[in-house]
Amino acid sequence: MERPTDCPLIALLTDFGQEDYFVASLKAVILSLNTEARLVDISHSVRSFDLRSAAFLLQACFRFFPSGTIFLAIVDPGVGSGRRILAAETDRYKFIAPDNGLLSSALEISPERRVRAVTNTSYFLSDSLTTFEGRDRLAPLAAWLSLGVPAAEFGPLINDYMSLPLPKAYIRQNEIIGHVAYIDKFGDVITDIPAGMLPLSPEAGRPPDLKLTLRKQTISQFRQYYTQGGRSDLFFLVGSLGLVEIAQREGSAAAALGAELGDVVVVQAGV
Amino acid sequence: MERPTDCPLIALLTDFGQEDYFVASLKAVILSLNTEARLVDISHSVRSFDLRSAAFLLQACFRFFPSGTIFLAIVDPGVGSGRRILAAETDRYKFIAPDNGLLSSALEISPERRVRAVTNTSYFLSDSLTTFEGRDRLAPLAAWLSLGVPAAEFGPLINDYMSLPLPKAYIRQNEIIGHVAYIDKFGDVITDIPAGMLPLSPEAGRPPDLKLTLRKQTISQFRQYYTQGGRSDLFFLVGSLGLVEIAQREGSAAAALGAELGDVVVVQAGV
Amino acid sequence: MERPTDCPLIALLTDFGQEDYFVASLKAVILSLNTEARLVDISHSVRSFDLRSAAFLLQACFRFFPSGTIFLAIVDPGVGSGRRILAAETDRYKFIAPDNGLLSSALEISPERRVRAVTNTSYFLSDSLTTFEGRDRLAPLAAWLSLGVPAAEFGPLINDYMSLPLPKAYIRQNEIIGHVAYIDKFGDVITDIPAGMLPLSPEAGRPPDLKLTLRKQTISQFRQYYTQGGRSDLFFLVGSLGLVEIAQREGSAAAALGAELGDVVVVQAGV
Repeated sequence: MERPTDCPLIALLTDFGQEDYFVASLKAVILSLNTEARLVDISHSVRSFDLRSAAFLLQACFRFFPSGTIFLAIVDPGVGSGRRILAAETDRYKFIAPDNGLLSSALEISPERRVRAVTNTSYFLSDSLTTFEGRDRLAPLAAWLSLGVPAAEFGPLINDYMSLPLPKAYIRQNEIIGHVAYIDKFGDVITDIPAGMLPLSPEAGRPPDLKLTLRKQTISQFRQYYTQGGRSDLFFLVGSLGLVEIAQREGSAAAALGAELGDVVVVQAGV
Repeated sequence: MERPTDCPLIALLTDFGQEDYFVASLKAVILSLNTEARLVDISHSVRSFDLRSAAFLLQACFRFFPSGTIFLAIVDPGVGSGRRILAAETDRYKFIAPDNGLLSSALEISPERRVRAVTNTSYFLSDSLTTFEGRDRLAPLAAWLSLGVPAAEFGPLINDYMSLPLPKAYIRQNEIIGHVAYIDKFGDVITDIPAGMLPLSPEAGRPPDLKLTLRKQTISQFRQYYTQGGRSDLFFLVGSLGLVEIAQREGSAAAALGAELGDVVVVQAGV
Repeated sequence: MERPTDCPLIALLTDFGQEDYFVASLKAVILSLNTEARLVDISHSVRSFDLRSAAFLLQACFRFFPSGTIFLAIVDPGVGSGRRILAAETDRYKFIAPDNGLLSSALEISPERRVRAVTNTSYFLSDSLTTFEGRDRLAPLAAWLSLGVPAAEFGPLINDYMSLPLPKAYIRQNEIIGHVAYIDKFGDVITDIPAGMLPLSPEAGRPPDLKLTLRKQTISQFRQYYTQGGRSDLFFLVGSLGLVEIAQREGSAAAALGAELGDVVVVQAGV
């Protein structure tokens, strides 16, 4: 008898919302194929078709999951258009997703990635046309992976999978040029600037003398915690993802700044 | 030792929302009675008391669940009014729900349905008065079913359970007369017109020459996929439930049309 | 071989929302430490930093969970400020939460409570500074509890844990003075007045002659069920938590009354 622990987790990330039959249909299909499947929701509340935020979300949490976890990620503005379905593997994880860039942030930071285009239709629920590929094609693939079918069964290795055209933070002279990568429900503005780029002073606990500019507004308070300083001050800090974040203790920094995804963020040594 | 797989799934559908203690209370009661119960959420975001959408949701996904699944469905404007509690069975599934029409769409398409009115109060958490029958009466019934108690223990077979007074699509001369049956989070307008009613041309892939009218607006684009054509065009297609849907590639067809549940939809051969 | 049933439930309550990577990160950390962990969501939709509603929610449902359940509750306006982390136990349950009053309502009604301040950092994911203590500190503690580590490993017993400064209902002459304790998604206004304070007439089923005043509006209909009487009338009843609630059959009593958390509610014998 196999122990339940032998059955890997399937973690779900979609923009399907919680209010319709979409997520339930995915889960039902998976559980019909593998009655022992163990499902975990990452989120189903990604803004409709917002590939960029979905890719960020996946990249922000996938590495905390147990080795062997299968990620089923479906944000798919091109459903039914003939874009490919991917079955990807890294040293620790497996992924099923449309070939639209959704996986690129997660794959980019993973060693030993192998990406396949799914060409074998025999693992689909049905090989007829469908407008709900999540239910009819992607969910069954995740279920079969959880049952031990090797990804190699699904199709050939490829290298030309899509990447999102995301800008990257870089250093120019004495400035760090970054971008708004994500805005969370608290209104915290997460940039793509890794802590390692900051000229942090060697004494831990002593904030370096930095200022940050976004949409012509300059923030000169760099902090270690959300709770330091006044309640409505804007400040920036190194957040839990190791990235520079702009926050307001009790309020939405994004609203205060009018920040949007992709906005340029400049960090300079204070003058 | 029983294997976990011997324990059927319990799938939950309510209008309780995610923000209160209601759903947690149901789950807590079920897990207290059957610590091995395996719970799956269908949705808890049905609009308060919207029986029609809840019935549609259940009917849209229940048949994808594994055989043996127990559905606990609670949208219950009449809680505490003395309306009956139903325990229904089909060839593959079991259902616990108030007797208010919530189950009728799912039962209607299921063979071998047996519906019972729950009269045996000994499986309730307590037989005293309650304003939260979900927690105190329906959840325990679902838990006992999952432990193997036969539905026949709960009460006698009945035939007079409630059905929702839903209109049905029909053909009149050269027209199909249907209705808006559901509006999803993408704003897609799902009708009650099954694909089988459409005069589809025999060549797969060639869209038939059809037009659709809703609220005096005529849509003449019939497509196979969401991604064909312009981004803001309104079009209609056969969706993943086998029903005619009206959609807009990047936008809400429901908002563009002002569509509401129950609106009449007419499909004609194009002129 | 251990049976899955030996593994206690971990029930999660946060204000992290469903849309970000926060909840998934907690679950991923727990499942990485204990691959057999069984997770149940209470709610992640508590209003940001609303400790009072979170404490109410926990207190409203925890006692329905199976004995042995571990509650991981994180609503934490003071994250990173150095406030303590608590590991509490009652006769039936265990709790991990920040020391900010979140647990006080649940602990208050539990016998044999033992509360510890977590001082042992060796069960944290890492002992470096963090702005996401939920993921890096509290979630691992819950996971280790589920693996059988005794709470006594985490730190010493304390008595000075924080309580929320919540008012309590009391009787003054012929009046009951209570307060709005919670407002649910249906707009029902739940007070802190227990049914036991009401001068209920001995004949069950016969509503006593009472009136309730809130924000200078008087409600004189006391009912047993939501469905009695007219659809837009305001009325009050003893709800499923054993507390006096104000409701409107098809509408939001909270909106009709402009009720807010903490508002004074007075119940008098009718004149």
